[in-house]
Amino acid sequence: MRTLIKDGTVLSPSGGVRADVLVTDERITAVTEPGVVETADTVLDATGKYVLPGGIDAHTHLEMPFGGTFSADTFETGTKAAAWGGTTTIIDFAVQAKGTSLLSTLDKWHEKADGNCAIDYGFHMIVSDVNDGTLKEMETCVGAGVSSFKMFMAYPGVFYSTDGEILRAMRKATETGAMIMMHAENGIAIDELVAAALAAGHTDPVQHGYTRPSALEGEATSRAITLARVTGAPLYVVHLSAAEALSAVAEARDAGQNVFAETCPQYLYLSIEDLAKPGFEGAKYVASPPLREKRHQADLWRGLRTNDLSVVSTDHCPFCFKDQKELGRGDFSKIPNGMPGVEHRMDLLHQGVVAGEISLGRWVETCSTTPARMFGLYPRKGVLAPGSDADIVIYDPAARQTLSAETHHMAVDYSAYEGFEIAGKVDTVLSRGKIVVSSAGFTGSTSHGNFLSRELCQYLN
Amino acid sequence: MRTLIKDGTVLSPSGGVRADVLVTDERITAVTEPGVVETADTVLDATGKYVLPGGIDAHTHLEMPFGGTFSADTFETGTKAAAWGGTTTIIDFAVQAKGTSLLSTLDKWHEKADGNCAIDYGFHMIVSDVNDGTLKEMETCVGAGVSSFKMFMAYPGVFYSTDGEILRAMRKATETGAMIMMHAENGIAIDELVAAALAAGHTDPVQHGYTRPSALEGEATSRAITLARVTGAPLYVVHLSAAEALSAVAEARDAGQNVFAETCPQYLYLSIEDLAKPGFEGAKYVASPPLREKRHQADLWRGLRTNDLSVVSTDHCPFCFKDQKELGRGDFSKIPNGMPGVEHRMDLLHQGVVAGEISLGRWVETCSTTPARMFGLYPRKGVLAPGSDADIVIYDPAARQTLSAETHHMAVDYSAYEGFEIAGKVDTVLSRGKIVVSSAGFTGSTSHGNFLSRELCQYLN
Amino acid sequence: MRTLIKDGTVLSPSGGVRADVLVTDERITAVTEPGVVETADTVLDATGKYVLPGGIDAHTHLEMPFGGTFSADTFETGTKAAAWGGTTTIIDFAVQAKGTSLLSTLDKWHEKADGNCAIDYGFHMIVSDVNDGTLKEMETCVGAGVSSFKMFMAYPGVFYSTDGEILRAMRKATETGAMIMMHAENGIAIDELVAAALAAGHTDPVQHGYTRPSALEGEATSRAITLARVTGAPLYVVHLSAAEALSAVAEARDAGQNVFAETCPQYLYLSIEDLAKPGFEGAKYVASPPLREKRHQADLWRGLRTNDLSVVSTDHCPFCFKDQKELGRGDFSKIPNGMPGVEHRMDLLHQGVVAGEISLGRWVETCSTTPARMFGLYPRKGVLAPGSDADIVIYDPAARQTLSAETHHMAVDYSAYEGFEIAGKVDTVLSRGKIVVSSAGFTGSTSHGNFLSRELCQYLN
Amino acid sequence: MRTLIKDGTVLSPSGGVRADVLVTDERITAVTEPGVVETADTVLDATGKYVLPGGIDAHTHLEMPFGGTFSADTFETGTKAAAWGGTTTIIDFAVQAKGTSLLSTLDKWHEKADGNCAIDYGFHMIVSDVNDGTLKEMETCVGAGVSSFKMFMAYPGVFYSTDGEILRAMRKATETGAMIMMHAENGIAIDELVAAALAAGHTDPVQHGYTRPSALEGEATSRAITLARVTGAPLYVVHLSAAEALSAVAEARDAGQNVFAETCPQYLYLSIEDLAKPGFEGAKYVASPPLREKRHQADLWRGLRTNDLSVVSTDHCPFCFKDQKELGRGDFSKIPNGMPGVEHRMDLLHQGVVAGEISLGRWVETCSTTPARMFGLYPRKGVLAPGSDADIVIYDPAARQTLSAETHHMAVDYSAYEGFEIAGKVDTVLSRGKIVVSSAGFTGSTSHGNFLSRELCQYLN
Repeated sequence: MRTLIKDGTVLSPSGGVRADVLVTDERITAVTEPGVVETADTVLDATGKYVLPGGIDAHTHLEMPFGGTFSADTFETGTKAAAWGGTTTIIDFAVQAKGTSLLSTLDKWHEKADGNCAIDYGFHMIVSDVNDGTLKEMETCVGAGVSSFKMFMAYPGVFYSTDGEILRAMRKATETGAMIMMHAENGIAIDELVAAALAAGHTDPVQHGYTRPSALEGEATSRAITLARVTGAPLYVVHLSAAEALSAVAEARDAGQNVFAETCPQYLYLSIEDLAKPGFEGAKYVASPPLREKRHQADLWRGLRTNDLSVVSTDHCPFCFKDQKELGRGDFSKIPNGMPGVEHRMDLLHQGVVAGEISLGRWVETCSTTPARMFGLYPRKGVLAPGSDADIVIYDPAARQTLSAETHHMAVDYSAYEGFEIAGKVDTVLSRGKIVVSSAGFTGSTSHGNFLSRELCQYLN
Repeated sequence: MRTLIKDGTVLSPSGGVRADVLVTDERITAVTEPGVVETADTVLDATGKYVLPGGIDAHTHLEMPFGGTFSADTFETGTKAAAWGGTTTIIDFAVQAKGTSLLSTLDKWHEKADGNCAIDYGFHMIVSDVNDGTLKEMETCVGAGVSSFKMFMAYPGVFYSTDGEILRAMRKATETGAMIMMHAENGIAIDELVAAALAAGHTDPVQHGYTRPSALEGEATSRAITLARVTGAPLYVVHLSAAEALSAVAEARDAGQNVFAETCPQYLYLSIEDLAKPGFEGAKYVASPPLREKRHQADLWRGLRTNDLSVVSTDHCPFCFKDQKELGRGDFSKIPNGMPGVEHRMDLLHQGVVAGEISLGRWVETCSTTPARMFGLYPRKGVLAPGSDADIVIYDPAARQTLSAETHHMAVDYSAYEGFEIAGKVDTVLSRGKIVVSSAGFTGSTSHGNFLSRELCQYLN
Repeated sequence: MRTLIKDGTVLSPSGGVRADVLVTDERITAVTEPGVVETADTVLDATGKYVLPGGIDAHTHLEMPFGGTFSADTFETGTKAAAWGGTTTIIDFAVQAKGTSLLSTLDKWHEKADGNCAIDYGFHMIVSDVNDGTLKEMETCVGAGVSSFKMFMAYPGVFYSTDGEILRAMRKATETGAMIMMHAENGIAIDELVAAALAAGHTDPVQHGYTRPSALEGEATSRAITLARVTGAPLYVVHLSAAEALSAVAEARDAGQNVFAETCPQYLYLSIEDLAKPGFEGAKYVASPPLREKRHQADLWRGLRTNDLSVVSTDHCPFCFKDQKELGRGDFSKIPNGMPGVEHRMDLLHQGVVAGEISLGRWVETCSTTPARMFGLYPRKGVLAPGSDADIVIYDPAARQTLSAETHHMAVDYSAYEGFEIAGKVDTVLSRGKIVVSSAGFTGSTSHGNFLSRELCQYLN
Repeated sequence: MRTLIKDGTVLSPSGGVRADVLVTDERITAVTEPGVVETADTVLDATGKYVLPGGIDAHTHLEMPFGGTFSADTFETGTKAAAWGGTTTIIDFAVQAKGTSLLSTLDKWHEKADGNCAIDYGFHMIVSDVNDGTLKEMETCVGAGVSSFKMFMAYPGVFYSTDGEILRAMRKATETGAMIMMHAENGIAIDELVAAALAAGHTDPVQHGYTRPSALEGEATSRAITLARVTGAPLYVVHLSAAEALSAVAEARDAGQNVFAETCPQYLYLSIEDLAKPGFEGAKYVASPPLREKRHQADLWRGLRTNDLSVVSTDHCPFCFKDQKELGRGDFSKIPNGMPGVEHRMDLLHQGVVAGEISLGRWVETCSTTPARMFGLYPRKGVLAPGSDADIVIYDPAARQTLSAETHHMAVDYSAYEGFEIAGKVDTVLSRGKIVVSSAGFTGSTSHGNFLSRELCQYLN
């Protein structure tokens, strides 16, 4: 079974070339000058379109348990929405509950995902309970293809780890070659600010932003970097949103430390003004770190250009406005934290290309190639090369679309980008050689997606 | 005429993949999974070897006129030596003499090179005489495929431009999209230090180093960056050798400015201790900027990892020890400035891979892919992609060699790296599809190399 | 009762002037040109000597309870030793035990000190237990002349406060105008390193240094600065010992934040090499932060020059080698933390003047004038001005002495500076007009020293 | 002849004390508790007022030759205006013309000033012509009490020195202990921008600002700092106006280098908006460096607090609007550069105290004590201490005044601060013991002012 994608512009981080891509069954078998391969079972005409490696969203939370409820997208709805948006791999987070083991957690997440994914998927492990047993299990996880471990400097009493626990886990990461991912906000200080705000009768969604100042993200980021330096562990800062944090990352990177960071589309396009929308509307935009003052956006775009921000992920963690977000009416601290977005990352970042913020190469690099290398999937994913999985997006830069909850495919009742007009649109998506999205709609299957056993980071200095 | 390179590890900046490369005549027509293409006129077995895009040396000085003499390599000897070392493109400098025009200069350099090059070549233009006519000619040069202009903050009375002249040229660069390359040393201050040293009777080669302190390279680099910021021009700092200059570049890059820098192997491996060798031996190592204290080396390697140094070039500018370097006996300021190196760049940087200083991907990126993008040659050069010129190096990482003037191919009577033991060796080199170096020796021809008309920089933020 | 100090060089931060100082009873009544006042009850000839405001040691721990024992100097022995060394004011720390109130703590410390001090004294308050009651009591303390509150980011389970508790206390400080003093080491991370060292069988005193790396002092200092910025509180970093911490302070001060720091003589003159002395000898040098690598010393001297270090205190906290330090044989973590030094600060810093590290003006400023302003004692203390308390030191720069446990006046059985040869020596000391140290020996009385009710900081930007 | 100033608040950099000041003839003989001295020939009641050391304006240009004309204030009018404003010492610039010697220049300036000054005065020397003779003369100047030499990186063809010339002069400064003062703007680049603006037909006064961007002041400041580091010379940056320059100074000072800077009131209170006033009105505000965007003002105030700006001077260089400024109608580059201000410095900076930007201590320190120490006048000037010259200002913080050309005493037909309402006013001024300004008006004499032979800098690290 051979598929030929012809006459498109094949993109890589270095730029674009005119080439044909030949797929045989699940893999790419050749990239050639146009016309070299003449026949195939299926021929897709990509004239005037971009042909790029499928998007990799390294930060999603599907069916995530949260205070008695779950994030609104299941593995089925979430991976289908991802595919619609040109993302062909997600790395979701298995969440250790305190008092449970990492391996039983991993088993549980395999159970959730197995047979329910439209695209390939991997797992990071959230470590909530650092102890001798957990540390030992980290080794096993690495062997089982889960080579990255997320820790939290926020959310005391839930996911929070102390600096001592972080230090222990980092030492284990250094030993095993694993990556430590960090939610870097000073949750201890933030909880105090939250308590003070509530005590003062400030309960609106915008308080979520006021009580999590950017300085406290900068502080935690600096602290994580220091702990990583003391232990020698590589560090990946998730969902960086604040200029202060970016400065800390840039300084460490200038010094040659293995420190990396991702940002998310919401921090590039939305702001605390959305959180401050009248009534309870701001609740739609409650996520942590919070949306920032607009001035941070230019810094984040610059960070994407300078590679101080190496990856764009979504932190997709949708909660419906009705019933879920509403849990926080009258007390902003009870609003479920998270926003939907897995479907729109490729489109939103393409706007950055159109606006001249980033190059075509950086679009592909930050959304696909670097996440693949960062999380041990290269060259299986993240590149259109012979031998790679045929996860391919044909993207039409000339198309136009408008984002809306009425048309999106995520299982959530609002869009954070309602009404955004987008230049460009996914035309066709292949996952391991199979066409899953095209003008015919979604033609994939949730029994298609495979678990990806990941290598160690391939992006270290 | 088809050539198949099979079973090697094909390298790109993102890493390596097992693949075959098919060459038809002068270009790459396909990159495939091993075995997809079964036959070809010539089959080269690359098992156990790296297959990489030919090296691009963006900084050479062949047959450069200098005080009544010329740099020792002609276009013929220099390009052959380059080929021997795995470099398949050079960009040499056409040198405007004061009082002459850019276009006549370009004509003269075409005349020198035409029909005398074993590999493809391009030109940068050295602007020594900024005036209305010259500025106008810059536009013509860009149209003629010479899209980068080098200026000097050093060498007053020879190549030196004032800050006002630099500003004028930068404005023209902004207008045309051209790149300004800068030799960033404060020559005015240096000349004063040289005069003071000579007046004090200090005449040995090591004085060349003492009178050009790293602080004055840092200063000039900062100044060039400011002038570039004021005018909006992109800036490429040549042969960066000093930690202070690297800091200035890193700071500008963090701020998102289009500032780039190259370093050279001599600054990574040699030091002022070589300049201080007994007798007149140090003259072999006289180049500007001078070799620095060893402590700078670690900073430069770090800069290569962080991409604050984006390119490795050689600044190949050989003068024979006998008769040429000897002009400076008794007066270090009369020693011709320059060192040989075009043949050893790929090997020397491969040692950085072996030593863990840089990754395989960075080796290819700094020595081939980025120079191609920086100077408007991509994807014709710098990548193994369908449609690209078949400039290909098969490199054997298991081979061993020792560098020596007795065995090198450059037309100079000493080696700056005499006795260096090298892990790895060029196995086979193709230039536009033709095998020019192999176990059969040099099989190319000096009528083979073509002039490369270059586009504008493809590496801007 | 009038005392005239004549013909000396009267020092202030701006430099020295030839002048006479007239003391009437307890205060200075005039500073005049030599000879203006002709008679007095007592005339002290200061020809060839410096006349300076008495030293202020803003960081001492006398009779400090520690694990069932006490620091070895009582208020009596400690203040007498201070007087011997030219220090006429100390500010000691009242130590809140968890579960007790600030005011009862203050009462207890008044009881200890009252009637037992040879010189005037004030108190800072150590806050170990942040709660609504404690925060309320901070206001009362300020009214009672205790306007500075020390917190610990080190010593979990003992003095440690969480970032949330620090935030609360800082808010109260902002409200009341009080100063927050910070022991800035990441104690949570350090405890983990200590546990790991002990688990690996590393028990020697030098491990105290290895398990408290300078990066973790830098981190905590940065964090404290951020919390201070978020709350608007002024911050005083105690016993800064590490270059990383100094950088953080310098950056905040450049930005105009009210951040100040002190260092101590031990960090200027001693190093981790002392901690590494053979056998258990290193225990003498165990204090926190630990003595650092020698390279930090030059940075600290520079910090004194640039005013990024504004104060020199001693952190005098002596434990006898016998019986006390020995508690930690076989387990470095059980060695009582602290070193003696209250007697030697003025002499040791004078060596910095002799060595050209600081000026005479900076000697007086860092050891007397700035501590007075920093802690609300100016112009009562810290300056030789009319109306000021007649706390005066006549210092003979031509005298010589050798430091030794055999001759010092502190109640501790070793000297950290044994054998140090000192240029200069205290000649005469007046405390509130009374001669307490002179060639006649100690002529003061422990009923002489008064409690100093302090104002708010007078040193804010 | 004894004068007693009683019951005032005597100010110094450390703060204020209640004290009486006794003056005998020309000097201060005692500072006492109020009431200690009971009688005097003259008694001045300073109740409710500040008593401070007379202001020192370290940067004035009186009778400065400029393009066939002269700055509008003579030594007589200028020093009288200074006295009216509470300034009792000026340091003016002797201006070497190219081709003349330093000593003949100094003679000429002595001739101008001798017998024509109402207050004491010193000279800096402007070095326009660096050669062997000039360098030798620098030694003689130091011996003659002129220990500071100003150089220009601006004004090519007039005062401009090349980096090589600066280097030579700095080496001589290091040798002699003299201070190099620097006008730090990249004049070579600026001239190019000016030429381009004029060529484009942009002739209005605001172009003066556009063609001298703050980046080029930052650049020159950095360059001067590097040259000073290379040579070991102390450096004093005059009239710093730009945030970029302040950053460079702060960085060097953090590193412990002997780099100092002054700013001027016009940069604290005025902006490029004044330069852009309609018609030719902006010409009143033409000075170099130019007035900046308002955002720089907050940075400069912060610099005054952090001591990265150590001195406030005026750069008083008045040209009448009529006839003088008008020379530049139709060509902004012909407008004489300079603004009046010697009379208003103390008042304008006192507004900074009132506004909470600086403390009373910093007011005195930046306007009197530090200039005295910086330029070798301490403790003769800059402090109210026994033995000091009785240059004393009684300042009434409760008085109010409005600045205006109609009431000022400078010989210029406009005020840059027309209509500014000022809190506070000079009450009485003594110059060497003589009352020169009081409610009786100006009672001094232009035969009173003496030349001040200055020592070397007393402010080095």
